[in-house]
Amino acid sequence: MPVYKLTYFNLGALAEPIRWAFKLAEVDFEDERIEREDWPALKKSGRFPSENMPLLEIDGEVFTQSSAILRYLGNKFGLTVDDEIQRLRLDQVIDITTDVRPSFRAYFFEADPEKKEKARLTIVNEVVPLYLRQIEGIVIKTDGPYIAGSKLTYGDLSLTAALNVWIGVGVITEAQLQEAYPATAKLREAVLNVPQIKAWLEVRPKTTF
Amino acid sequence: MPVYKLTYFNLGALAEPIRWAFKLAEVDFEDERIEREDWPALKKSGRFPSENMPLLEIDGEVFTQSSAILRYLGNKFGLTVDDEIQRLRLDQVIDITTDVRPSFRAYFFEADPEKKEKARLTIVNEVVPLYLRQIEGIVIKTDGPYIAGSKLTYGDLSLTAALNVWIGVGVITEAQLQEAYPATAKLREAVLNVPQIKAWLEVRPKTTF
Repeated sequence: MPVYKLTYFNLGALAEPIRWAFKLAEVDFEDERIEREDWPALKKSGRFPSENMPLLEIDGEVFTQSSAILRYLGNKFGLTVDDEIQRLRLDQVIDITTDVRPSFRAYFFEADPEKKEKARLTIVNEVVPLYLRQIEGIVIKTDGPYIAGSKLTYGDLSLTAALNVWIGVGVITEAQLQEAYPATAKLREAVLNVPQIKAWLEVRPKTTF
Repeated sequence: MPVYKLTYFNLGALAEPIRWAFKLAEVDFEDERIEREDWPALKKSGRFPSENMPLLEIDGEVFTQSSAILRYLGNKFGLTVDDEIQRLRLDQVIDITTDVRPSFRAYFFEADPEKKEKARLTIVNEVVPLYLRQIEGIVIKTDGPYIAGSKLTYGDLSLTAALNVWIGVGVITEAQLQEAYPATAKLREAVLNVPQIKAWLEVRPKTTF
């Protein structure tokens, strides 16, 4: 078995679905967490080719890009499906949640309170509905609970982790998700109740999102 | 064989590697091109779930997200590799070029000439070098010319199409690419000289990028 080392902030966010994949496969990995105040110095240290995280080292070889890493582990650990159209849907869902990130970043890093609230309202009223409508439209193509029906895949892990961030930063509530996007809410519930993930959620470091 | 219909602006950009995949596989597809002035009305027509393009219809089912679509066709048409680590590298390269897009958009849609030039200089001096260094680091892991060595894959198509956009919008020249990122330049040359792609480049509609 290769030696895996995952490096990220002390957050769920982009690293969390990767951690879940390891937990589901019951494969050991080092879960290195960088404190926010140490990041500016580390960022330019040469250890991080993209000057961002997460980073996965596999037997010492460095890989970046959380979605590429998650898909790799998902394929390796059997968290995928054979059907090509269903795999296209997994990747489509991942890329839809990725498209949302620039608006989230613009909001998160905005210092001016008035502009920040304006950015938040754009996300709440325009961005989240546009993207969640697409996701709901994909999720309802099977009887669920997952994107590929009864088979849990890396796409469900990615989506659930993204939804947790959206809920964590306050752009949608669990009740609103349940009300407006019931199939997506049901998928998230199912993922969070998978025994290995449920057990991890109880012991993982407590962070805002 | 399914019926494929690809819809995009009359541009290369995000749809171009998808078109190349069809050409390489010698599979017919409808190449619908929307004129820029028609887009505002069409965008909200209900035909475009993500209110953006490209869109691929497969036997009438609508799929969005260019990278997911390209990976699907790449797998279907044999434009991939068996080795999982090499596949991870393909996906990593695609996601690296995707990360660049928000800065490009900020530049492209900036109306103020002074701000636009500032945005361009940030891309030229910071964004492009940071991302091309990563890409070159991945490409040189094999003897080339492609990311997975001698095997042409969807990752090479995506990267070459991205490089064509970067060159087309003027944030790097072919000579600069050749000078600073020789393995990446060699990969692009190899892709553009594949007979089916070369033939397509001669007959395709002429657009800026």
